[in-house]
Amino acid sequence: MDIKEILKQVRDHTLSVEEADAALKSYGFDEMGYAKLDVDRKARTGFAEVIYCSGKADEHLLHIFGRLLEEQGEVLGTRASAHQYELIRREYPQVQYDPLSRILKIEKPDKALEGMIAVCTAGTADISVAEEAAQTAEFFGTKAERIYDVGVSGIHRLLSRTELIQKANCVVAVAGMEGALASVLGGLVSRPVIAVPTSVGYGANFGGMAALLTMINSCANGISVVNIDNGYGAGYIATQINRLAVKGV
Amino acid sequence: MDIKEILKQVRDHTLSVEEADAALKSYGFDEMGYAKLDVDRKARTGFAEVIYCSGKADEHLLHIFGRLLEEQGEVLGTRASAHQYELIRREYPQVQYDPLSRILKIEKPDKALEGMIAVCTAGTADISVAEEAAQTAEFFGTKAERIYDVGVSGIHRLLSRTELIQKANCVVAVAGMEGALASVLGGLVSRPVIAVPTSVGYGANFGGMAALLTMINSCANGISVVNIDNGYGAGYIATQINRLAVKGV
Amino acid sequence: MDIKEILKQVRDHTLSVEEADAALKSYGFDEMGYAKLDVDRKARTGFAEVIYCSGKADEHLLHIFGRLLEEQGEVLGTRASAHQYELIRREYPQVQYDPLSRILKIEKPDKALEGMIAVCTAGTADISVAEEAAQTAEFFGTKAERIYDVGVSGIHRLLSRTELIQKANCVVAVAGMEGALASVLGGLVSRPVIAVPTSVGYGANFGGMAALLTMINSCANGISVVNIDNGYGAGYIATQINRLAVKGV
Amino acid sequence: MDIKEILKQVRDHTLSVEEADAALKSYGFDEMGYAKLDVDRKARTGFAEVIYCSGKADEHLLHIFGRLLEEQGEVLGTRASAHQYELIRREYPQVQYDPLSRILKIEKPDKALEGMIAVCTAGTADISVAEEAAQTAEFFGTKAERIYDVGVSGIHRLLSRTELIQKANCVVAVAGMEGALASVLGGLVSRPVIAVPTSVGYGANFGGMAALLTMINSCANGISVVNIDNGYGAGYIATQINRLAVKGV
Amino acid sequence: MDIKEILKQVRDHTLSVEEADAALKSYGFDEMGYAKLDVDRKARTGFAEVIYCSGKADEHLLHIFGRLLEEQGEVLGTRASAHQYELIRREYPQVQYDPLSRILKIEKPDKALEGMIAVCTAGTADISVAEEAAQTAEFFGTKAERIYDVGVSGIHRLLSRTELIQKANCVVAVAGMEGALASVLGGLVSRPVIAVPTSVGYGANFGGMAALLTMINSCANGISVVNIDNGYGAGYIATQINRLAVKGV
Amino acid sequence: MDIKEILKQVRDHTLSVEEADAALKSYGFDEMGYAKLDVDRKARTGFAEVIYCSGKADEHLLHIFGRLLEEQGEVLGTRASAHQYELIRREYPQVQYDPLSRILKIEKPDKALEGMIAVCTAGTADISVAEEAAQTAEFFGTKAERIYDVGVSGIHRLLSRTELIQKANCVVAVAGMEGALASVLGGLVSRPVIAVPTSVGYGANFGGMAALLTMINSCANGISVVNIDNGYGAGYIATQINRLAVKGV
Amino acid sequence: MDIKEILKQVRDHTLSVEEADAALKSYGFDEMGYAKLDVDRKARTGFAEVIYCSGKADEHLLHIFGRLLEEQGEVLGTRASAHQYELIRREYPQVQYDPLSRILKIEKPDKALEGMIAVCTAGTADISVAEEAAQTAEFFGTKAERIYDVGVSGIHRLLSRTELIQKANCVVAVAGMEGALASVLGGLVSRPVIAVPTSVGYGANFGGMAALLTMINSCANGISVVNIDNGYGAGYIATQINRLAVKGV
Amino acid sequence: MDIKEILKQVRDHTLSVEEADAALKSYGFDEMGYAKLDVDRKARTGFAEVIYCSGKADEHLLHIFGRLLEEQGEVLGTRASAHQYELIRREYPQVQYDPLSRILKIEKPDKALEGMIAVCTAGTADISVAEEAAQTAEFFGTKAERIYDVGVSGIHRLLSRTELIQKANCVVAVAGMEGALASVLGGLVSRPVIAVPTSVGYGANFGGMAALLTMINSCANGISVVNIDNGYGAGYIATQINRLAVKGV
Repeated sequence: MDIKEILKQVRDHTLSVEEADAALKSYGFDEMGYAKLDVDRKARTGFAEVIYCSGKADEHLLHIFGRLLEEQGEVLGTRASAHQYELIRREYPQVQYDPLSRILKIEKPDKALEGMIAVCTAGTADISVAEEAAQTAEFFGTKAERIYDVGVSGIHRLLSRTELIQKANCVVAVAGMEGALASVLGGLVSRPVIAVPTSVGYGANFGGMAALLTMINSCANGISVVNIDNGYGAGYIATQINRLAVKGV
Repeated sequence: MDIKEILKQVRDHTLSVEEADAALKSYGFDEMGYAKLDVDRKARTGFAEVIYCSGKADEHLLHIFGRLLEEQGEVLGTRASAHQYELIRREYPQVQYDPLSRILKIEKPDKALEGMIAVCTAGTADISVAEEAAQTAEFFGTKAERIYDVGVSGIHRLLSRTELIQKANCVVAVAGMEGALASVLGGLVSRPVIAVPTSVGYGANFGGMAALLTMINSCANGISVVNIDNGYGAGYIATQINRLAVKGV
Repeated sequence: MDIKEILKQVRDHTLSVEEADAALKSYGFDEMGYAKLDVDRKARTGFAEVIYCSGKADEHLLHIFGRLLEEQGEVLGTRASAHQYELIRREYPQVQYDPLSRILKIEKPDKALEGMIAVCTAGTADISVAEEAAQTAEFFGTKAERIYDVGVSGIHRLLSRTELIQKANCVVAVAGMEGALASVLGGLVSRPVIAVPTSVGYGANFGGMAALLTMINSCANGISVVNIDNGYGAGYIATQINRLAVKGV
Repeated sequence: MDIKEILKQVRDHTLSVEEADAALKSYGFDEMGYAKLDVDRKARTGFAEVIYCSGKADEHLLHIFGRLLEEQGEVLGTRASAHQYELIRREYPQVQYDPLSRILKIEKPDKALEGMIAVCTAGTADISVAEEAAQTAEFFGTKAERIYDVGVSGIHRLLSRTELIQKANCVVAVAGMEGALASVLGGLVSRPVIAVPTSVGYGANFGGMAALLTMINSCANGISVVNIDNGYGAGYIATQINRLAVKGV
Repeated sequence: MDIKEILKQVRDHTLSVEEADAALKSYGFDEMGYAKLDVDRKARTGFAEVIYCSGKADEHLLHIFGRLLEEQGEVLGTRASAHQYELIRREYPQVQYDPLSRILKIEKPDKALEGMIAVCTAGTADISVAEEAAQTAEFFGTKAERIYDVGVSGIHRLLSRTELIQKANCVVAVAGMEGALASVLGGLVSRPVIAVPTSVGYGANFGGMAALLTMINSCANGISVVNIDNGYGAGYIATQINRLAVKGV
Repeated sequence: MDIKEILKQVRDHTLSVEEADAALKSYGFDEMGYAKLDVDRKARTGFAEVIYCSGKADEHLLHIFGRLLEEQGEVLGTRASAHQYELIRREYPQVQYDPLSRILKIEKPDKALEGMIAVCTAGTADISVAEEAAQTAEFFGTKAERIYDVGVSGIHRLLSRTELIQKANCVVAVAGMEGALASVLGGLVSRPVIAVPTSVGYGANFGGMAALLTMINSCANGISVVNIDNGYGAGYIATQINRLAVKGV
Repeated sequence: MDIKEILKQVRDHTLSVEEADAALKSYGFDEMGYAKLDVDRKARTGFAEVIYCSGKADEHLLHIFGRLLEEQGEVLGTRASAHQYELIRREYPQVQYDPLSRILKIEKPDKALEGMIAVCTAGTADISVAEEAAQTAEFFGTKAERIYDVGVSGIHRLLSRTELIQKANCVVAVAGMEGALASVLGGLVSRPVIAVPTSVGYGANFGGMAALLTMINSCANGISVVNIDNGYGAGYIATQINRLAVKGV
Repeated sequence: MDIKEILKQVRDHTLSVEEADAALKSYGFDEMGYAKLDVDRKARTGFAEVIYCSGKADEHLLHIFGRLLEEQGEVLGTRASAHQYELIRREYPQVQYDPLSRILKIEKPDKALEGMIAVCTAGTADISVAEEAAQTAEFFGTKAERIYDVGVSGIHRLLSRTELIQKANCVVAVAGMEGALASVLGGLVSRPVIAVPTSVGYGANFGGMAALLTMINSCANGISVVNIDNGYGAGYIATQINRLAVKGV
């Protein structure tokens, strides 16, 4: 029910002023004391609410997981620990957990995947972040091609996969250390590149800040950047872009 | 002519091995001594080559401008100074210059604009960067709605424009100081938000780094970030996304 | 007119749904194309809108100044240049300008000042920022005592003024270099201390960041911090606190 | 006994010069060898002395806790570990411990709470810091309203609570990640906002520094900032302001 | 044997050219394969060589400790762990260990202490660093007065000890958090102040960097700074200064 | 087979266009799903591929190790843990492990070492990084002289070894803390100095960043810098330079 | 008149309680409205007050200069501009100005210099800072030996002057770029080294921060550091130390 | 004359002890009061002394230039201004100046160039730094191939020049913005790559620091880094390496 609808009901006296005032202020999220669930979210943004598991208390996680499962029929949790997997599994044995991407989920069966995005990594150590991106995109209905270990220090590895990458509606470039992969990809494709710096590296990489600066300063066009190790965020944006390509305006 | 085409001509003896070897290595850019123009770029990426004017020597700028005008029939220059405008105008009187966005261009007439993006700013001082984004998008054929001075310290200014912003295929969020605009926009729309930190502010803003960090760490989904004051980059990416929405896969 | 009032008029059919929808979205700020003036601000927050002059285009500044003078009967401009003073003076000869604080204003005569705040500086070079704080507070009706050049390297200078400082409802501590003044003041008074780091200093002071870190990490209680050189912000908050003390809940 | 009183007794020969000299130098704090307790503090500032437990040696903590309890009849300890709770509980079984806020205290019963402050958080992970602020304020006699999980990425959650927040004498804004909550709150209320950046987040948040910079650079008025995760400091300042509002000058 | 002495022996044919060449290159330190002990050091600088224990392998530590004990008759080790104490104690039961300062030593009995330095701390948590400074100075024959917990947030604690501090030949100011103690001390005394920032604090103190910047930018005269937590360095320099005062030129 | 060769075979019809197209894109690396091994590397660069063990999953490490051993007849692994040594040893009992340098390798017997490089350290704590450099160089066939514990605070230790150092084709300077060793070496030799900052130190060394900045800003000529603790990289470059000296153009 | 003296006069009724109270609070500094001159300073610290000229308003500078000249019979001004020299010269033609060190002074004739300090620089560009140090020390009665351009990249230049440097009571080490000079000096002398980083350099020297970090992290003993370019501070401390050596306790 | 030679003369009584002592301490540099010229440098390192002109006083520059010209028969000055060119030209009309590289020199005619290095840039704005590198190398007798504007955002531009680059004895990679060029080059060649970050770029490039971090963290082997914009340093090192290749051990 949008604002105009509420106003109409007030006009038609099917809603009192007090009810309307309350409705304007509370619809679309659920008060649980310690957290406000945004259950109206899917309608508004086209994406279900996702749980960032890291640091959540056991009791809270269990409660939120259950509530979202009930509301949405499926749930995606990111940055989940093995302990949290056990916790959820005792209550919901059908839950799936991938220790590499740390994704914990119950997913509706036979989900159709549409369009295509490419998820590329510079090295093998970047794969955990890349999997968070790819599996997030897949959860939201996007087909993801994985193109791993194509870092720029062996440029022919990347060039041999150009054709596939150029077909993607959006390219996710995952790289740690110096993060140069995004710049080379930006010059090879006509679609948007979402760059994900990772914390892979040591010394003067400052936990991924060096890669982030590389990507933000890229001389190539078409590159925008998300936070260090934020595979989820990249998978989300890639899905937004892929949906626009598939469904149009 | 792609690689397979070259190989076929070699097979058919219409191209010698030496010619093929050279062709594989040199086609698609033009050697000018001091700069290699990427004249094949439009075919490959769908975007003409653009001139980053700042710091270019007069002679070089004039030469490159002329060459691209000849090749492409139109030219876009960014970060141009008033002096550079005068320089170009003496040779090409039809050139247009906007001192706010610092864009210098000769544009084909009656360009049709398609789709729609929204360019929002937090304050009035952010408008010069926003105009670089909007005019870049328009040069590449994208319709841009300007929604300026809707910073979060007066949240009702932004909320009153929500309806329009939600219709955009991509939202460009331009903000300096603390850069909170992107987070609020991210929660209001279902389309990608390209966040542009600006160097507007003083003290502990570190020339825009504070806004950049705000945007990179945003708690909202769907936000990716470009370099400080990089309006051109945001307009470019917004066009990539808008084209996907308009033309589909 | 608040939300309930609008809803009541809709219920009573004195306002159409469309009018109500528009009213909900636009009241309280004024659309000027390049800037949205928040003319309802004084009613809502108890403070008139203030102009941050730095970087404003001449035409915009003149227009905004005139509009606010008309709405509010007085105007406060901060960070104004001598040039901007001349610009405004040609139109409004009654305008006052202080080159030290860079405050430009037209103020209602015979304004009564209430309560009391103390504005302290560590050195003489911090006085320009302190004056911005003190004059801002005075513009908003707060009495300000100036206690300058009482830096901690000569602690007796400060201790000799303790009695006066302890009477203030709020203490503004303005200091550059190492910024230790705030910590000593925090231990001497029972009222809130608003710490303003200044960019005074050289070398490893990083344009005021060293003083900011000193103040944020203070071992004393009751200290909160605003941006480097932000005298205006400190004067504003000190006024908020002084009003609470004078008027109570 | 203040300085004048001492001087009078010297004049009246009820105090020798040597005694006066010593009195001027030692009254108001208690020498314990390793720590000088400021037992005069409550009289001077209106706040009892509080123990920052983190890192204190067991023996020292126990001694200081006992001494303050004796002097003040109640004690507040912050940043206490479970181990320290056990240590104190063996001696003082009436002690209370909250593992979320890590506050350890013995409090006088039936303490009346006066005035009102609002403690808001952006997310659920910020609640531990917010509880430190709220419980500190309550220990010092301030009524605290908790308004949690109202981050700006779902702006309607915050707007629905505006009315309550606007009634507070002081608003504490607790937020990690990008910390944009403070800016939005600053535009909604007329009372001072104390912003508390938290270390919640990952990647380029630099342990809370990103949120701190956001808050320091806020475009909104009325915002001052304390150290990262410093809930205690915010609760203290909010109490100072609340007392001014309740008791006036 | 200095250079002239070697040259004389060459002239007098009591030393061959080859022997002289070797002597010029190797005298004054002892080659142990993994470490070159500077056994000539005491003669040259007036200070015995000290062992920085942290990170040393057991075998190496034991070997170096034994060798220096033999050469010098006493040994000072800094940053020693409890484990290292056990290791040394098994071989040298007379060794002494202070877990607070982490100093491990065998010291000649009845060492006379000369002159006087003052070692001051802002808080109780800074005492471990201060003890490293004081005990280092004492090992090198300097009398050290300890004046702890005199931080500037309760300035009277410090002022009551001024007389003693002013008698010292050198003042060591140890402080974490915002590190303002050094500035106040600098204004109270005429002798050099060696400032030691400590890593005590949290949030935006950056492991002591905030205190270091405070001290480096101090507005007071006579302050120079050593590395964070470097109590040893401060005790060493204070001894150098104290010796000059005691022994003159 | 290089590009011309492929083109010739196409011309001569011994290779189809499709085969040529595939060959151009895939030769020289081996697809293993999770990692692309660059088995052509030795031919192209003169260096075998090396395994960066840190963070590799057990299964992956074992697989890659085996594959490279088979291809190259020897393998070098860096940053290996004791656990990884055990893992490899169970399968390949001939593997060697040095816990200091953390190098894990199977090396062809009786490898001849050519030319000479000097590996110098400032202190004993820098030796682990220096050993990674020296053993890497030796694995690649370079003779390495170790000159350890010659830091600049006892300059005579370094000067006594000048003659040997000046004979090296390349000098590797390994230093933590303030990293001044590289500058002094740069002034003593005519050959390139590769500077390796180490993370040895504490306080304001920022995990080696202070040493890195020292080396990058060196006033001496002939110094270039690798990442913090990157002994492997320095050993690699020193080998490149040594080979040029030995083999000429 | 110290505290005891005041108390005695109160006891003896030669001073009223009110007079004593005021005396306790105001003696020793002079109120000038904009600045509190510390005219008692020389008696208390042994150093006259010095003027930091940079940024002072003309009128203020002239007034302070005159007042100090009258009080002290001589004046030292640092960081003076040529303009300020002209300003003072018009009133006081006997003033002396050195454009290199930017020192402006009127000095008592035939000042005897005592003891000795050594002021060393790494390069010629560091001389302006070194002169500020040397001339400050001389103004305060210290003999200063200048040893310039002895940077560590040509270590023999420094070693050839060792004998002289070792005779100094204090060594001032002035260096920009990588700042390694202080570490080498620390190993050569037994007296304190005051290290002054300079802003000489470019690129990653961050305006002198690289040199500051080098010096703070020095592996040598006996080094303490002042702010970037703070020659005055180093000259002051060197004088404090030199006086202790000359006059003893 | 080396140390052994001096010792022999002492033995043979052709040199007195005093003369030998002085000779050991002063030979090889020239005392000019303000600067010590290292005239022995060419013999020792194979490189003449070079003048860093930036910031030198006119008189000093002229004097040093003349002296070196006399000693060496040619002179190389870097970072010279147009003003300095005029200054030198008045005295030495044969001097040459290149405003792009800012190199000022008098060079011996018909210098033979040996070996080959490749100097590559990412963009046209990096050419001024590249020219400093190339011309420095040429002055020292190295043949330099210029390969400009081959940044990685158009990877084919670089790949088409691979053959030439692979023939160089050393590759200098000059790049600003994100600096990814070095990583790609490192993977293409078997010779050392000297990476030169430039200050080209804006926003979050921090004056070249972003490019420096990219290069230091490079995932490719064989890359070492010099200071931002330090073309001279890269040309020097490339010459060292090239000489080793040409002349061997």
